[in-house]
Amino acid sequence: MIQKTCQQTRTISERIIFDKDLNDKRTLFGGKTLSLLDENAGLASFKFVKGKIATAGYDHINFWNPITTDKYIKMESFVTGVYHRQIEVFTKIISRDIKTDQPEIAFTSFCTLIVLKSNNEIAIPEIIPETAEEKYLCQGFENRLKQRKTEYLRKNEFLGHLSLN
Amino acid sequence: MIQKTCQQTRTISERIIFDKDLNDKRTLFGGKTLSLLDENAGLASFKFVKGKIATAGYDHINFWNPITTDKYIKMESFVTGVYHRQIEVFTKIISRDIKTDQPEIAFTSFCTLIVLKSNNEIAIPEIIPETAEEKYLCQGFENRLKQRKTEYLRKNEFLGHLSLN
Amino acid sequence: MIQKTCQQTRTISERIIFDKDLNDKRTLFGGKTLSLLDENAGLASFKFVKGKIATAGYDHINFWNPITTDKYIKMESFVTGVYHRQIEVFTKIISRDIKTDQPEIAFTSFCTLIVLKSNNEIAIPEIIPETAEEKYLCQGFENRLKQRKTEYLRKNEFLGHLSLN
Amino acid sequence: MIQKTCQQTRTISERIIFDKDLNDKRTLFGGKTLSLLDENAGLASFKFVKGKIATAGYDHINFWNPITTDKYIKMESFVTGVYHRQIEVFTKIISRDIKTDQPEIAFTSFCTLIVLKSNNEIAIPEIIPETAEEKYLCQGFENRLKQRKTEYLRKNEFLGHLSLN
Amino acid sequence: MIQKTCQQTRTISERIIFDKDLNDKRTLFGGKTLSLLDENAGLASFKFVKGKIATAGYDHINFWNPITTDKYIKMESFVTGVYHRQIEVFTKIISRDIKTDQPEIAFTSFCTLIVLKSNNEIAIPEIIPETAEEKYLCQGFENRLKQRKTEYLRKNEFLGHLSLN
Amino acid sequence: MIQKTCQQTRTISERIIFDKDLNDKRTLFGGKTLSLLDENAGLASFKFVKGKIATAGYDHINFWNPITTDKYIKMESFVTGVYHRQIEVFTKIISRDIKTDQPEIAFTSFCTLIVLKSNNEIAIPEIIPETAEEKYLCQGFENRLKQRKTEYLRKNEFLGHLSLN
Repeated sequence: MIQKTCQQTRTISERIIFDKDLNDKRTLFGGKTLSLLDENAGLASFKFVKGKIATAGYDHINFWNPITTDKYIKMESFVTGVYHRQIEVFTKIISRDIKTDQPEIAFTSFCTLIVLKSNNEIAIPEIIPETAEEKYLCQGFENRLKQRKTEYLRKNEFLGHLSLN
Repeated sequence: MIQKTCQQTRTISERIIFDKDLNDKRTLFGGKTLSLLDENAGLASFKFVKGKIATAGYDHINFWNPITTDKYIKMESFVTGVYHRQIEVFTKIISRDIKTDQPEIAFTSFCTLIVLKSNNEIAIPEIIPETAEEKYLCQGFENRLKQRKTEYLRKNEFLGHLSLN
Repeated sequence: MIQKTCQQTRTISERIIFDKDLNDKRTLFGGKTLSLLDENAGLASFKFVKGKIATAGYDHINFWNPITTDKYIKMESFVTGVYHRQIEVFTKIISRDIKTDQPEIAFTSFCTLIVLKSNNEIAIPEIIPETAEEKYLCQGFENRLKQRKTEYLRKNEFLGHLSLN
Repeated sequence: MIQKTCQQTRTISERIIFDKDLNDKRTLFGGKTLSLLDENAGLASFKFVKGKIATAGYDHINFWNPITTDKYIKMESFVTGVYHRQIEVFTKIISRDIKTDQPEIAFTSFCTLIVLKSNNEIAIPEIIPETAEEKYLCQGFENRLKQRKTEYLRKNEFLGHLSLN
Repeated sequence: MIQKTCQQTRTISERIIFDKDLNDKRTLFGGKTLSLLDENAGLASFKFVKGKIATAGYDHINFWNPITTDKYIKMESFVTGVYHRQIEVFTKIISRDIKTDQPEIAFTSFCTLIVLKSNNEIAIPEIIPETAEEKYLCQGFENRLKQRKTEYLRKNEFLGHLSLN
Repeated sequence: MIQKTCQQTRTISERIIFDKDLNDKRTLFGGKTLSLLDENAGLASFKFVKGKIATAGYDHINFWNPITTDKYIKMESFVTGVYHRQIEVFTKIISRDIKTDQPEIAFTSFCTLIVLKSNNEIAIPEIIPETAEEKYLCQGFENRLKQRKTEYLRKNEFLGHLSLN
């Protein structure tokens, strides 16, 4: 079986915060963060598997600390789990004060992506964590997967209660 | 105690899908959906409480069905739970085929927002569901809240394992 | 003949006003309003007729009250008249104060769209107003149509006076 | 009284048409045109009067010919009438085939702008047409102004029939 | 040989400066300027040769004076040299104070574009300067071309020293 | 004197190429590249000096290879020279084929930024290259600086020939 390290899927985007991206509280508009997130997490999954991949969902999206214009950010995504055609990508944003360079975790999330069936012939690699952070996150995959399966069992019940009007 | 109905917080955004919003699979770019989501959910919370509110996180974000250019969408958000200064906003996207008008649920999510402490004097209303859909979603709030509390207890352990480099 | 109610074509887009959308007077940039307008009015016409439709023109565009960041808006479009392959769509923006919820009409316009000839086989429905507002607007269609015809008769004279350099 | 020529207010914006600006009919999205229009017309009015100016409305917006990616465009705005604090700005788009350079009028409109009362001390110039096109357009101002006054008399009746819900 | 004047390739874009386009120093974000630049210079080259053209590079990009929101700008591009399939386009931005109309040169650059080989059958015209400014800029072409050739000779050495990781 | 390594200023932005960013040749629109460039190079300079910094100019901007949607890119910027209040930032884009991961240099440029005088009290560090690539680029700084000084001597002559109309 092919193996890829988390490092081989790591995707980075560093950004200055512009005034135009701020909300009424003068912090980075959440929608801007989520838009960057989806692009960055998607690219991490492309580095992992060469094929058409679709975003299935997000969970555990947390805005831990507000991002203001006196900070710059580093968004980092890498694969943290694989199960059949499902790929989990972790993303964190580290913000740094533009004057002191003091870092803090501003945002984290887990994204589930699906390798489309039309790509079935593609071999999906095993993911190999190396650093302490990668090992911690990959160890948690089993639990998060179980949580998602539990939730998925409720899918029909949940959707059945929603109005289509 | 003041009361507001889900209906009073309902926020709607209908959209055509433009070519420029598509990804490599010719479906609506997830980041675009998430960006619209954050704006729409935020407006629902503004209708509920008059004060500064910040997005704390999202969970249960599911892309149930791909959105293509032969569909138009209706995004709908409303408040589904309140606990102290926390507000939960549910959002769904119903897509409709441009030719047949056939509807389907394309996307759902729950967002947690926090009324900022500086607004403490503001009375936060009780939320009153009226329709079957609203009642179902509001009933589930207690469980989702419990899940979030459990996860929140792990906050320090989780953040403690993340690298700041 | 098929009939559709104004309600069946009603298209709604609610929005928060961002700093980035403001002009030098700190009110919503007119170009932003017009861009939202064209998308919303277009979607109303798509709900009315399933076929390719092109915007022919706008008249009676009025910015009645400035839209500022302490307001949120609800844009609403619906069909208000049909004549052969011409469809008229009315759009209004109601702005509401973010603190008091006090509403006012901020903007109105009438748009004329043309069902393209390549869609000739498509049956164009009759439009049926139900509310007092819908009835008032649909009643005015005949006069507006006459005004447009008068203006159209001057088309060649008008265009003939314009320089192409 | 100060005088300014139409030429002194002339404002030009030439553009290539990008794929991202196209609608489902592969022609320039009307909302994009209207957004460019408002910026260009506004700049023409800034050249005419040094003060805060707000857009009051548009009339006679006509999309005469579709704009496709095999064309490039020249948008041109200039002042065509002044009455008290009202300024009228005419805008036309000439599109040219990228291969043959064949020009055609793709779009025209008249915009009414208001010099804000806070600028009352500002002297508003007289507008002086020089070319045949400028003279034709300035001659028509009186009639268009009369039409707008007639319509303005109906303002309260019109707004009174609109629902604020 | 076909001849075209600089004037025949002249491309103009006039703009107001919006708040959303400002950087942390409250001047026009350089990236915005460069983005407008590439579009405007490209259009000047399209007016010169009817065929597929690609941007090869820029040199002598100078931000001479900061552009602030109390200014409006006029970007002007025209062809200033031709050598085989290479076309040079000069671009300048003149900014004007919104109150005093005082002009200054805010920005200049030279762009090199290449007519793609697939267009070889296309006759590339000679460029004819008419005004003093055009003559000065066209006279400098030979020197700039020599400088570019010298630099191009170092291409392989330069690229050979760059890491691909 | 304080020292900073090139590595300490390294700024990375990885991106997928979207359809909406393509030009008529189906390659990444140059203006998009230049806009990303200015943001990334600016952030590298912020990491080097804590103070207000303005972009003075670019030279040696080369589009070596076209960037298409079957590639993803990594933009990398770092400081390569310092002279008084001038900072030079080098930027390269490495594109990789989405299927084969084959890398190539798609773009390079050198940017000159100026630490604003109002920040005079700020100590500007010395830049320390470590890798072979960094050493090569830092060695070339002296020559590029000389070239810029030569060009700067011609500034008044050059600007004096430009028309302000």
